[in-house]
Amino acid sequence: MSTGPDLLRRFHDPFGWDGVPRQPYKEDAATPFRAIARQVLFATPELGCELRYFEMDAGGYSTLERHEHAHAVMILRGTGRCLLGDAVREVRTHDLISIPAWTWHQFRATDGVPFGFLCMVNAARDRPQLPDAAALAALRANPEIAAFLG
Amino acid sequence: MSTGPDLLRRFHDPFGWDGVPRQPYKEDAATPFRAIARQVLFATPELGCELRYFEMDAGGYSTLERHEHAHAVMILRGTGRCLLGDAVREVRTHDLISIPAWTWHQFRATDGVPFGFLCMVNAARDRPQLPDAAALAALRANPEIAAFLG
Repeated sequence: MSTGPDLLRRFHDPFGWDGVPRQPYKEDAATPFRAIARQVLFATPELGCELRYFEMDAGGYSTLERHEHAHAVMILRGTGRCLLGDAVREVRTHDLISIPAWTWHQFRATDGVPFGFLCMVNAARDRPQLPDAAALAALRANPEIAAFLG
Repeated sequence: MSTGPDLLRRFHDPFGWDGVPRQPYKEDAATPFRAIARQVLFATPELGCELRYFEMDAGGYSTLERHEHAHAVMILRGTGRCLLGDAVREVRTHDLISIPAWTWHQFRATDGVPFGFLCMVNAARDRPQLPDAAALAALRANPEIAAFLG
């Protein structure tokens, strides 16, 4: 029951934590994303899940992808927009977003300010799938989504 | 891939979310706690874990307990103190706290303001254990903990 300093990890502005490295968003440089970083906040086997913090600079965006595993998201910093299935939504600090299995999703910063969110996932999960040309065309058939994707 | 309104649940001050009821902290009224409420933010089987938001009014506190399962905590609102094993720590918004298996822990609001935190747990978990008289005496042998428990 000894309390090492690692049991309490201090937050410090701007959105960093003691002992939590700011990592590249993905190792795979072939996937399209921009100006986004990953910080893994909790990832021990007994939890069965992981809590990550993703943050993008103004103009940044995450990969447009889908997968079998679900995401549970809470916005932690700023405002942004997200593509969620067949809709584009504005999201603000502390909003909750559920991303079900096989739902296309992407987050984009807005407003010229950094945008960050917590993402909880099952520790056992599949790899994301990127849209092929047909899937991208189907998404872009919706003018709102086409405008969102840019 | 239809996007029902339930996939995005809006945050609204003071610390509530659309469609998330503010529940009693515990159903078991025999455990000692004060002025604390529970809001379950994410709890679907495919996640393997749950994310809850606990909030206590000024002067409130959670149950002093321990268990086999681990807690992963992020402070979301205000400042407070927590007993974590053999130490009392001050905690502030966005600090991260890891509570390992069988570690005595309790959270207390300070500063006359509400205090809230996210708590991530494995969906499959054991029931908490309360301290018996001997365990409580052992904890109180530490003057800092005795002062914390009041």
